[in-house]
Amino acid sequence: MSCPFQPSIPVRLFFRSISIATALIATATAAALSATSPLSAQTTADIAKMRPAAERIVKAALADSAPYARLGRLVDGFGHRLSGSASLEKAIDWILSEMKKDGFANVRGEPVMVPHWVRGAESVTLLSPRETPLHMLGLGGSVGTPANGITADVMVVHSFDELTKRKAEVVGKIVLFNVPFPKDSTPFNGYSAAVIYRGIGATAAAKVGAVAMLLRTVATFSIQSPHTGAMRYDSTTKKIPAAALSIEDAEMLDRMSRRGDKVRVTLKMSAQTLPDAPSRNAIAELRGRELPDEVIVVGGHIDSWDVGQGAMDDGAGSVTAWEAVKLLKTLGLTPRRTLRVVLWTNEENGGRGGRAYRDTHTNELAKHFAAIETDNGIFAPLGFRFQGTPAGAKRAAMFAQLTALAGARTIAPGEGEADVESLIEAGVPGFALDVDPSRYFWYHHTTADMLNVVSETDMRHSVAAMAILLYALGEMQGTLR
Amino acid sequence: MSCPFQPSIPVRLFFRSISIATALIATATAAALSATSPLSAQTTADIAKMRPAAERIVKAALADSAPYARLGRLVDGFGHRLSGSASLEKAIDWILSEMKKDGFANVRGEPVMVPHWVRGAESVTLLSPRETPLHMLGLGGSVGTPANGITADVMVVHSFDELTKRKAEVVGKIVLFNVPFPKDSTPFNGYSAAVIYRGIGATAAAKVGAVAMLLRTVATFSIQSPHTGAMRYDSTTKKIPAAALSIEDAEMLDRMSRRGDKVRVTLKMSAQTLPDAPSRNAIAELRGRELPDEVIVVGGHIDSWDVGQGAMDDGAGSVTAWEAVKLLKTLGLTPRRTLRVVLWTNEENGGRGGRAYRDTHTNELAKHFAAIETDNGIFAPLGFRFQGTPAGAKRAAMFAQLTALAGARTIAPGEGEADVESLIEAGVPGFALDVDPSRYFWYHHTTADMLNVVSETDMRHSVAAMAILLYALGEMQGTLR
Repeated sequence: MSCPFQPSIPVRLFFRSISIATALIATATAAALSATSPLSAQTTADIAKMRPAAERIVKAALADSAPYARLGRLVDGFGHRLSGSASLEKAIDWILSEMKKDGFANVRGEPVMVPHWVRGAESVTLLSPRETPLHMLGLGGSVGTPANGITADVMVVHSFDELTKRKAEVVGKIVLFNVPFPKDSTPFNGYSAAVIYRGIGATAAAKVGAVAMLLRTVATFSIQSPHTGAMRYDSTTKKIPAAALSIEDAEMLDRMSRRGDKVRVTLKMSAQTLPDAPSRNAIAELRGRELPDEVIVVGGHIDSWDVGQGAMDDGAGSVTAWEAVKLLKTLGLTPRRTLRVVLWTNEENGGRGGRAYRDTHTNELAKHFAAIETDNGIFAPLGFRFQGTPAGAKRAAMFAQLTALAGARTIAPGEGEADVESLIEAGVPGFALDVDPSRYFWYHHTTADMLNVVSETDMRHSVAAMAILLYALGEMQGTLR
Repeated sequence: MSCPFQPSIPVRLFFRSISIATALIATATAAALSATSPLSAQTTADIAKMRPAAERIVKAALADSAPYARLGRLVDGFGHRLSGSASLEKAIDWILSEMKKDGFANVRGEPVMVPHWVRGAESVTLLSPRETPLHMLGLGGSVGTPANGITADVMVVHSFDELTKRKAEVVGKIVLFNVPFPKDSTPFNGYSAAVIYRGIGATAAAKVGAVAMLLRTVATFSIQSPHTGAMRYDSTTKKIPAAALSIEDAEMLDRMSRRGDKVRVTLKMSAQTLPDAPSRNAIAELRGRELPDEVIVVGGHIDSWDVGQGAMDDGAGSVTAWEAVKLLKTLGLTPRRTLRVVLWTNEENGGRGGRAYRDTHTNELAKHFAAIETDNGIFAPLGFRFQGTPAGAKRAAMFAQLTALAGARTIAPGEGEADVESLIEAGVPGFALDVDPSRYFWYHHTTADMLNVVSETDMRHSVAAMAILLYALGEMQGTLR
């Protein structure tokens, strides 16, 4: 899913995209409350015309076993797909070959150079008050330790404020940030609050003399299951190794520390960053029957972290987008505009695929009608978020009458996903599929992001909702700008 | 918790205790529906007299931070407590010293020789259709593999019947039993149905020529979290290594197999069984003020598997029993009968502690008024199960009016726990604390059986319920036999 910690973005810009989104949401919500615009009549007419097609789509999608079977072949067949890995490139080769078999137009891999971080062997061992292995995952982008590890006392803190207040104690220690999601927050709001410690915790700790950073894993629930994810360094501060501990182990060290026990660990990580590697955005098109130059981009990110299968994040989002377009093709519902499936590479630890797409297609962006990415997992679909102008939000919202046939009952202002962020900034109206968020942070970036997390029923509904939205946007009169 | 797979019990006796329990339950239920017996008047009078004490107990227990703090010092301080391990014996030393500090009488460790199985390094690596490590835990009691492991094709089956039907295909293969809990079963009923594959799956597979046995982990839910647990061999069949795979990985191999992929793995296990080791049942008493020779045994098992901290299974049950007795002592509510805390050793992989207690105290069993073990984790208490005569069940049920003050609203016929099984068979009325079962099989026998699984609120309520029951049984007139 969307990662706010791109290595090249300075700290002060960390929440830039969130601020932009918040502003747009506020404006769009205000507009949605205003009087009916003249455009609504046209949209109402569009909707009436499209309803029979939407009903056909739902019927076909709910009976279609192909999307889930394809997701299974992708994730079981290739496993994780970390940027720079052979498995990612093999998966992309297979995807391009399958897209050709599907009969899509202009199937190609568009080149992107991606970061190449490799985890290697890693461990955290508790030495005091007793010896036991802990449950950890190094954070993506972290430097490694010396071969014999870093052995030091652990200082547990619960906020950046506490780190600052106790900075005199930090020198030579390993800082453990034990910061849960805020109480009573929604999963995604809680994530936004907690993930900052993953992003810049190592730098904050290094600035006051820490030798390594450990993190209570960023999750709503754990069965000794640490989560990896992106972190970044500050170019002015020493790079120290950074790893997540399971919630259980972070809580245990905190309890030991509160009892006055000396908490001492050895952290070993052989992580390293190799030279950038070649990768590709995988692209295929269903050319529009009337307005082929107007492009609706739809996709997910095909890369994943190097644990689990990246089934939920974001194999399922990728295959849902791809299969939604395929379903329209199969049903003979080719819309007026071109539907372009884009499976971006390197969302997780660089965002290079999203930016490369923008750079490669700069001259076409004015003709991009909409950009849609799914990256909150595939669970029961609830609706779509729309990021764009208030007028666009208002028109888009009306199509919820159609997507509701597949369970996606609202199209409401909200933030788009990471790979389309640069398109949205360039003025392209953005959409994201909203799904039941309750279990996402149980699995996100863990070894448990496996096919069984994704329910086939939910995926069929999601394909249906996405295909309806694509059909509606592809057919509609006017614009969403 | 209760393990039906004691190495010395022949297969045909596997469900013996369950059958006995079922028979008793049926009889007792019938009795509970019959007319009021003359004993009820006495019990009603007992209850009225005890109510003020029960109210004091609840108030004190719900304000008492000591039990959870003690559980924390036990499980964080010593970690897992597998039979034969130094950590178990150190934990027992500490417990005996704490029991003495509590001022209990006759504090002692009663000798028990226990099995000494050690896990060692272990792994399963998928070789085909692609190479990736799988998530596994060897089963307790399993033999190891040769040093270079066992490499073989995997045959996935879903029942013993399927294994029998396809036995011609088995020779030289590793059998994977992918058997989930039956749909719509309660957690404990589902466990009873699924755990047979853990218990005798290796022997069943070996009989038809398998070289090793893998098992879909016996669990209701997994985050790549395999569960260990006892298995046993048949003396007439070759011993083959046995390990659990996470639900996710078992499902993946099954999908691969159904697609027609050749599924091939290397299993490496350096498990071995060493000579039996000395251990102890930890015992302490609050001597009865009028009938000190009448003994109410109450406890949990102090041993655990060698993963996690054994906090839920059964550190929490052990400390709840111990602290319930301590609470009565602190409140000056010493009952007429003696309360004997027994923390049994080696429940998990041998049941030696329970049998040793019976053998050591054979001459006293007629004077054992009741035997209570808690071994379903500590979650929100719901009530108690009673295993004994119909008359006893009826009288016991009335005390639910008192234990309900702590949330334990029923005392109903049901099966007692493993360590008191031999006492119950000898005629001692048995009780077990019933708690919310919904999450037990998420954590049971996993690395995630850590303190945070146990809520302090639930533990305070459980101590209160147990202390009320102990007080009531310790004070009551008559007998439960």
